[in-house]
Amino acid sequence: MSEAIVLLSGGLDSATLLAMAKEKGYDVVALTFDYGQKHKRELDSARKIAKQLKVNEHIVIPLDLGKLLRSSLTQKSLAIPDGRSEEDGPAGIPSTYVPARNIVFLSIATSIAESRGAERIFIGVNAVDFSGYPDCTPYFIAAFQRAINVGTKSGKEGRPIRLETPLIHLSKAQIVGKAVRLEVPIELTWSCYRGGKKACGKCDSCHLRLKGFAQAGVKDPIEYEAD
Amino acid sequence: MSEAIVLLSGGLDSATLLAMAKEKGYDVVALTFDYGQKHKRELDSARKIAKQLKVNEHIVIPLDLGKLLRSSLTQKSLAIPDGRSEEDGPAGIPSTYVPARNIVFLSIATSIAESRGAERIFIGVNAVDFSGYPDCTPYFIAAFQRAINVGTKSGKEGRPIRLETPLIHLSKAQIVGKAVRLEVPIELTWSCYRGGKKACGKCDSCHLRLKGFAQAGVKDPIEYEAD
Repeated sequence: MSEAIVLLSGGLDSATLLAMAKEKGYDVVALTFDYGQKHKRELDSARKIAKQLKVNEHIVIPLDLGKLLRSSLTQKSLAIPDGRSEEDGPAGIPSTYVPARNIVFLSIATSIAESRGAERIFIGVNAVDFSGYPDCTPYFIAAFQRAINVGTKSGKEGRPIRLETPLIHLSKAQIVGKAVRLEVPIELTWSCYRGGKKACGKCDSCHLRLKGFAQAGVKDPIEYEAD
Repeated sequence: MSEAIVLLSGGLDSATLLAMAKEKGYDVVALTFDYGQKHKRELDSARKIAKQLKVNEHIVIPLDLGKLLRSSLTQKSLAIPDGRSEEDGPAGIPSTYVPARNIVFLSIATSIAESRGAERIFIGVNAVDFSGYPDCTPYFIAAFQRAINVGTKSGKEGRPIRLETPLIHLSKAQIVGKAVRLEVPIELTWSCYRGGKKACGKCDSCHLRLKGFAQAGVKDPIEYEAD
């Protein structure tokens, strides 16, 4: 069976994505980035999920860009807003946007996939219940696929590494449904932008998650501060 | 004046590129990657060139991908070939190709540029006297520019970071001519894929460099093993 790289943050979406890649029969290599995110505990979640879902290998890449990145997700001086940020600028992109994050993640995934001979890269971008990040849209994915097609050896040899985005048009409630059906260890996932002991329940990521569980009629097994 | 990120490897092309960016009046931030290349001494060259050409800042990013990358430029078990490799595969890409290297470099440059508010990224790709790498072509640059346009905040706000590739259609001899005119410290540059005390004079990078100097009628000031 052929190999797929799965970008695994440790959140609900990427854990579900991983289970979907396994269901399709791929040999899965999980890839996680330690890029200076405040919610470092998602890395522990990623490790536990990778183990429980029995991936072939889990690669964690240290990317020392934290202090170079302007984002409330990485900079102590910028607070993570409750809900969607009010300071979104002309394009309505929240302060939690990490500049070019998915471009960086996909580029390193492409490099590793091509080195290993992996045929697919799974990325759990979602353009329905999301924070409005431009690097989560089908337009971006198509553009990056084109860069792979023309800019890599695999592309020039007529077998370009293919990006797979099975979550892109799903609602969060549909993702919750898939997670339940595929027996994803939801209790191990971490979505909250704040790295506290319990999920804050207030940041945009918590809002989206809670709305998804409510709409799916499923109880979220993780603990929230307000509980 | 606005800021530009210049990808600086320490070779002749990127040193000339840096001088061109300065000539155009940009505030230059040099960006260099320590990615496990065998010719680590190019990093020393990059540092000396950045200092001599008085950049505003020089950022060196440690990228611990060396053992994950399949390339004769990074793996001890793969020898760097003399001249163009004979084991090129169906698309004629040499073993010195580092999978998706420029995709990775440009993605991190984009992330840093967007975080700092830099408007331009200069990359010294050349599609004339080059080793046939797919990530050095105008097709790849156009595809990556599109990914920036649709996939970043700067793009969504109508002021996408622009890639600048002033060397792309120049011959190596023309690049040598520009380096001389702009008083680039050519003696500090390092192009050889092998990281020896002197340049080997035999690898494809040395071949291209020596041919360029010969055609330009300029003596290359660095030392070669055969000298």
